[in-house]
Amino acid sequence: MASSTVGKPISCKAAVAWEAGKDLTIETIEVAPPQAHEVRIEIYYTGVCHTDAYTLSGKDPEGAFPIVLGHEGAGIVESVGEGVTSVKPGDHVVALYTPECRECKFCKSGKTNLCGKIRATQGKGVMPDGTSRFTCKGKPLLHFMGTSTFSQYTVVADISVVAITPSAPMDRTCLLGCGITTGYGAAVITAGRSGTGVEPGSNVAVFGVGCVGLSVIQGCVAKGAGKIIAIDVNESKRGWAEKFGATEFVNPATLPQGTSVQERLVEMTDGGCDYTFDCTGNVHVMRSALEACHKGWGESIIIGVAAAGQEINTRPFQLVTGRVWKGCAFGGVKGRTQLPGLVDDYIQKRLKVDEFITHRQNLDGINQAFGDMKGGDCIRCVVDMRAS
Amino acid sequence: MASSTVGKPISCKAAVAWEAGKDLTIETIEVAPPQAHEVRIEIYYTGVCHTDAYTLSGKDPEGAFPIVLGHEGAGIVESVGEGVTSVKPGDHVVALYTPECRECKFCKSGKTNLCGKIRATQGKGVMPDGTSRFTCKGKPLLHFMGTSTFSQYTVVADISVVAITPSAPMDRTCLLGCGITTGYGAAVITAGRSGTGVEPGSNVAVFGVGCVGLSVIQGCVAKGAGKIIAIDVNESKRGWAEKFGATEFVNPATLPQGTSVQERLVEMTDGGCDYTFDCTGNVHVMRSALEACHKGWGESIIIGVAAAGQEINTRPFQLVTGRVWKGCAFGGVKGRTQLPGLVDDYIQKRLKVDEFITHRQNLDGINQAFGDMKGGDCIRCVVDMRAS
Repeated sequence: MASSTVGKPISCKAAVAWEAGKDLTIETIEVAPPQAHEVRIEIYYTGVCHTDAYTLSGKDPEGAFPIVLGHEGAGIVESVGEGVTSVKPGDHVVALYTPECRECKFCKSGKTNLCGKIRATQGKGVMPDGTSRFTCKGKPLLHFMGTSTFSQYTVVADISVVAITPSAPMDRTCLLGCGITTGYGAAVITAGRSGTGVEPGSNVAVFGVGCVGLSVIQGCVAKGAGKIIAIDVNESKRGWAEKFGATEFVNPATLPQGTSVQERLVEMTDGGCDYTFDCTGNVHVMRSALEACHKGWGESIIIGVAAAGQEINTRPFQLVTGRVWKGCAFGGVKGRTQLPGLVDDYIQKRLKVDEFITHRQNLDGINQAFGDMKGGDCIRCVVDMRAS
Repeated sequence: MASSTVGKPISCKAAVAWEAGKDLTIETIEVAPPQAHEVRIEIYYTGVCHTDAYTLSGKDPEGAFPIVLGHEGAGIVESVGEGVTSVKPGDHVVALYTPECRECKFCKSGKTNLCGKIRATQGKGVMPDGTSRFTCKGKPLLHFMGTSTFSQYTVVADISVVAITPSAPMDRTCLLGCGITTGYGAAVITAGRSGTGVEPGSNVAVFGVGCVGLSVIQGCVAKGAGKIIAIDVNESKRGWAEKFGATEFVNPATLPQGTSVQERLVEMTDGGCDYTFDCTGNVHVMRSALEACHKGWGESIIIGVAAAGQEINTRPFQLVTGRVWKGCAFGGVKGRTQLPGLVDDYIQKRLKVDEFITHRQNLDGINQAFGDMKGGDCIRCVVDMRAS
C-alpha cells in the first residue's frame, strides 16, 4: 500500500483564508509528512458549515490567519506517522474536530464526548507539537479545528480521525463529520436525564430547520417522539421539516401580534415541550427554546454556536421550577467510538444523509459554496476536493 | 379524639401582615372549619424564612395583603373535612407548601416534585374552593403558600400536609417544612444526571452558608462527596460550614484583586466542580456557580429565589461545552412521600436539625424573629406559636 509520497511533503491544492472577510484563494500548498501520532489524509469531499463562515468573517475573536478552514471532511489515509495504530494507509476516514483520546480525564469520565488531550494546540491552530504541517509561498498556514479539510491533503492527530466502512460514499460520509451527527446526537444521546436521548412519546420543538435541525428531527423520529414541532422564520422550510418527520411547523413571523413562540408551543403541547433544541445560534431563540419547555422536567439543549460576546438570559424561576438548560458539541457523540455506528445506520437506511445535499461545487467553486449556504434553499453544499 | 372545636370556627392568635413593608401585628382571628379535603392544624412551631420576609417587604409582585404568612410549620391536626383520609385528628404533621396530590400530570410524571393540582388558587392566596378560612375584624385574610403557619390554627388542603412520627419534637420538624429539606434534597435528589444526588467523590461548591447551604453541605456529606467547598462573604460562616462537613471555605471578599470566585474554584478542583449550588438568590452568584462547574459535565443547581425581574445570564458556550444549569423547589422532595423518611433520618441522627436553631421567639416576638434572621449570626429562628 505504500505510496511514493510517504515520508515526503506533498504539493496540492487548498482553499486558503489569507485574511478575515475575504474570499478564500485556491493555492498550491505544501503538506508535510505526518509526525508521530499523526495521520495524513487525502480529502475527497468536504462540507461547508456555518462555523467556517463565522471564522472567515472575522467575527470569531479567536480566529487567526492565514489558515486552512474546513472541518466536515472525508477521505483516504495516505500515510501515518510513528506509533499510529488506529488507522492505516488506504482506510476510508472521517476527520474529527472533536477528538477522542480515550486516556484523558474527559474521555474516561463517561460523561462527555469532549476530549482534553490536544485542546490547547488545536485552539491555537497548530499540531500537538506546536507547529503546522502546511506552508504556502514559504509561509506557514494555521490548521483549523484540528481538521483543515479545505485542502486536498491534510494532517490530523491520530485521535482526530476515524476509519469507516469503504462501502459508504465519501460525498455523504463527509457530512457526518459535523452537521448531521451534531443534530442527531443531540436528540439520541445528549437529551434526557440519563443521557440516552429523548424518550418515546416526548413532545419536542426544534428551532432552526437547517442541516442540524433536520438531523435533530430525524433523531427524534428514531426515538419515537410524539409531537415534533419545527420552528423557522423561513416558510420554505416547512416542506423540509415535514419530509424529515416533523409533525408540525410554526413560523414565528406569522404568529398573532403579542403571541410569543414559546407561548404558542406551550399551548400546542398542553404545558410545554419535554425537549427543545436550539439550532440557530441566536441567543434570543435560545431563551424562547428554554421557556417553551414544560415546567418540572423540560430540557432545552443548545446546539447552535452564538456570536462572540453574546449571552443567554432568563429568569432563574424557569430553572427553579424544574426546567433544565444544557448543550452539546458534536451532538455528544464520541467520534472514534460512535461514528462508525452512524455510518452503518446510513448504510442500513436508518439515517438520512443523501437528502441533505442540495448543492455541489468543485474545489475551485468553494467560495460559491459559502454563498450557496447563505441561501434559504441550501441545506448542505458538498465540495468535491479533487475536481476543478 | 373529637375535640369540642370540631365543625366550629376557632378564635386564636395570629401574626397578620396588613400591608407591605410594615411589621406583623398579633391579632385574634377566626379560623373557619375545614371544608371537604381540608385539614385544620394547631400550629405549635414555625420557622421564619427569607421568603416570608421577601413577601412582607412588598418586593414580591405577586404578594397581596392582608395575609397570614409562614410556611415552615409543624403542629397537630385538630379536625379534618369530608373525604380526608391521609391524616386524622391528633396526627403530628408538617405543612407542605409544595403539595403532592399523586393524581396530576406532574405527580404522575416521576420527574418532578411540583404538583399542579391547587397551584392556581394557592398562588392567589385562597383555598381550592376560591375562598379564605381566615377572618379578622370582619375582613378575610389571604392564605400564604397554602400553609399560613403564622397562626395558632391554620387550614390547608389535605394534599398540603404530611403526618410524621409523634416522637420527633415539633420545634425541630417545623424546619423540615422548608429550609433544611430544600438544601438537603437538592444535594441528594435534584443533583445528578439521573436525579439521584451527587455521586461519591464529587467535588462540590455551595454558595451561601445559611440554613439551605448548610443543608446542602450535609446532603453532600451523606452522599460521600469529595471536596465540599463552602463560599460566603461572611467570614463567621467558616466555622458553621466546617461544623456541617465542608472541607474548604472561600470568602470571595478576600480573593486577590482580579481573581473571580469561579476561577479560584476551578483552580482548587483541577478544572471545576462536579456540582455547584446557589443558596443565595443573587443572580450574579448564580452565574459564578455555573461557571465554576467542570467542563463536560458540571451541574449547577439554583435553589435561591431571586428578586422579581432579576435575570441570570452567561455565555451559551458554557452550556455547549457540557455544563448543565438546573434548579429545584423544596429540594425536589415529594413532601407526602419523602418527608417522613427525612424525619426518620433525623431521629436516627443521620440528619442534623437541632444544630440549625440559633434563635427562639414566642409568637409575640415574631417581628424580632425577622430581625434575628437578618443578623449574620442567625441560621434559623424558631417561633413558639403557643407562648407569648
